[in-house]
Amino acid sequence: MTAERFEATYLIETAHEPAQIAEVMAGEQSSGTFVAVPGETEELRALHAGRVERVTLLDETPAPSLPGSRPPKGASASPCYRRAEVVISFPALNVGSSLSQLMTTVAGNLFELAPLSGLRMVDLTLPESFVEDYPGPQFGVEGTRKLTGVYDRPLFGTIIKPSVGLSPAQTAELVAELVEAGVDFIKDDELIASPAYSPIEERVAAVMAVINAHAERTGKKVMYAFNISDDLDRMLRHHDTVLKAGGTCVMVNLISVGLAGVIQLCRYSQLPVHGHRNGWGGLSRHPLLGMDYRAFQKFWRVAGVDHLHVNGLRNKFVESDESVIASARECLTPLLGGYTVMPVFSSGQTAAQVPDTYTALGSKDFLFMAGGGIMAHPGGPAGGVASLREAWEAAASGIELGEYAATHTALGQALEKFGKA
Amino acid sequence: MTAERFEATYLIETAHEPAQIAEVMAGEQSSGTFVAVPGETEELRALHAGRVERVTLLDETPAPSLPGSRPPKGASASPCYRRAEVVISFPALNVGSSLSQLMTTVAGNLFELAPLSGLRMVDLTLPESFVEDYPGPQFGVEGTRKLTGVYDRPLFGTIIKPSVGLSPAQTAELVAELVEAGVDFIKDDELIASPAYSPIEERVAAVMAVINAHAERTGKKVMYAFNISDDLDRMLRHHDTVLKAGGTCVMVNLISVGLAGVIQLCRYSQLPVHGHRNGWGGLSRHPLLGMDYRAFQKFWRVAGVDHLHVNGLRNKFVESDESVIASARECLTPLLGGYTVMPVFSSGQTAAQVPDTYTALGSKDFLFMAGGGIMAHPGGPAGGVASLREAWEAAASGIELGEYAATHTALGQALEKFGKA
Repeated sequence: MTAERFEATYLIETAHEPAQIAEVMAGEQSSGTFVAVPGETEELRALHAGRVERVTLLDETPAPSLPGSRPPKGASASPCYRRAEVVISFPALNVGSSLSQLMTTVAGNLFELAPLSGLRMVDLTLPESFVEDYPGPQFGVEGTRKLTGVYDRPLFGTIIKPSVGLSPAQTAELVAELVEAGVDFIKDDELIASPAYSPIEERVAAVMAVINAHAERTGKKVMYAFNISDDLDRMLRHHDTVLKAGGTCVMVNLISVGLAGVIQLCRYSQLPVHGHRNGWGGLSRHPLLGMDYRAFQKFWRVAGVDHLHVNGLRNKFVESDESVIASARECLTPLLGGYTVMPVFSSGQTAAQVPDTYTALGSKDFLFMAGGGIMAHPGGPAGGVASLREAWEAAASGIELGEYAATHTALGQALEKFGKA
Repeated sequence: MTAERFEATYLIETAHEPAQIAEVMAGEQSSGTFVAVPGETEELRALHAGRVERVTLLDETPAPSLPGSRPPKGASASPCYRRAEVVISFPALNVGSSLSQLMTTVAGNLFELAPLSGLRMVDLTLPESFVEDYPGPQFGVEGTRKLTGVYDRPLFGTIIKPSVGLSPAQTAELVAELVEAGVDFIKDDELIASPAYSPIEERVAAVMAVINAHAERTGKKVMYAFNISDDLDRMLRHHDTVLKAGGTCVMVNLISVGLAGVIQLCRYSQLPVHGHRNGWGGLSRHPLLGMDYRAFQKFWRVAGVDHLHVNGLRNKFVESDESVIASARECLTPLLGGYTVMPVFSSGQTAAQVPDTYTALGSKDFLFMAGGGIMAHPGGPAGGVASLREAWEAAASGIELGEYAATHTALGQALEKFGKA
């Protein structure tokens, strides 16, 4: 019988022998430390030690990517820094049934180790036993489709702007315009939660009055993700406020709320949880530090988040299109046999990116968020939403966007105003 | 009447005009976005806009520190990248009484902005109104001294090693040796919380039996920081287990548990909360990305943590001594008129660093943790603890360490075995 293990994959850079440094990493994050200690018996090691599974040498560089690393004693004045992919496995019994302990094991005191001039976690597997401890997303793609009644295409959504400063009544006015325009989904900006000028009780009441009335009239219930990010007791209370008002989604800022808070919210929630990744750049922007999204998103899916932001094609940030699509694909790749999560494309999106997003992703299971692409459309928000739907029709029928635009006004206007690429 | 504001200070690097990019940052994190939106009225801006308070130009570099940034249109093929310190203030009313919303505002979607080739948050002020919402550390330096009965010197502590794998009985045996040796403080490693091989109920029972018996016999109650990092419901339950057994401290992994979980734990706790910063390297190691500890530690103090790790002089990680001391000084600098927190020195510490730590910090209010420096001392753990106390006596009396060692065996042995620096 083999005891269960989980694996973490790292990109490292070091002037030392990479295989030797991989052993240091495995030791530091399990039974070893920088000096031999008497209690580290053979038996204990056999049960608890991290194990280097694979070291794959990659390229070399003459200069260290990160400052502060110490080359081996006796190294030349300008040593060569080698990069390698390292896979380390850890016994599941070290972390028990705790996702935060798993994070501390794979992403704790590793980034600062002196022999390393670079360390980035690129992937992660999870113990099968986590399936029992963390049931994961309650809604995911399927549950979100059911609540919105949108089955045969991507969901189209938008964000309330300005991010901050609108009163509940002003927000509701904007929502009225947007639901009339035909959006499937609306979200608060990550910067507004429950300030005195727009307490969430009042915003929920004002917004849901509009959404509920529209649903009664048309049968279409627009999903609104209310940002309830806050201290935990308030988050749960605000969840209840949304639920009681007939709302169908709550939103949480993953990084600033943190893993334990998000787990607790997801366990408690009777609504899909929309996960916003703001702050992610700080963890990811240097290629030899922090984490790949492939690893990052797994923590939040296991925590139970239903929607995850992945940026968008040709976005206003620094992320490449390849990286965006890889992230979205990860969201749709089953994890521990399930844990489906809806990828959310956002940031400078307009009708022009709809077909490319669909083609690159190879799935219609995504939420496509356009802010200016809806609000600043020449035909107003209704034109903006129509342009996204028309772009989708073109994509689904395999018709080139420009060609379809010739006979579809809203799409034509969008391409003219926002550009074709 | 001026509305209350809080400030964030950043180090930025950009090929654009720094003052202009500072405006973009202020806009993105408050009322603005990348396109003009109709609702952003003058009135709304006056109340809610972020404001650039200061831009101080620093040095220049020919190459961008981080990849992916976009130089201005029409820039030369090899533009110059300028660094600047930027101070931006935000209206307190934007975030209300929510620490996580404050974090999203100052450290959210900023790191990825395309005009920036570097962004690091270096400092932060907090709204005065947070004093009401977040009472902060309940124990801090004073409360920790009271619980340990150590008033006139630094606290000396150690960490259970091996980090993982010891049974409750084995842990208790080691604790028996350590309390006999005279330590003030013992902590679990961050890698162990409540796994099946050492459930926290059993570990607490075994360890506290030893500590309570020792306290009854000697009057000295050693503080043991039990790592209760976990999902929230379990953390609170484990806190109760520690409290009921007569324990005097709980420990939490700040980053992997997260802000909302730590806030809730600190509000609930009747014991000092020992904050471990593992994972911090991933947020801090690149000088133009992430956060300075000066900013980072403020979130956790406001959350209510009583002890904060700051690494140690001549540590096994990449951090410089200057940075370590600056962090520890920050911990002892009042925040919002209080929020005292005990700095914890750790990582490769022995008697040799005690006087330097005291001199550099200018205070005896710190917890000094030695692992190998206690366990691997030639005189055993009792010799190790004696060597730390003797090093302190030397420092407090202004006697050179080598001189004092000549007449103090334990210190002499420590310097011989671990080196003098």
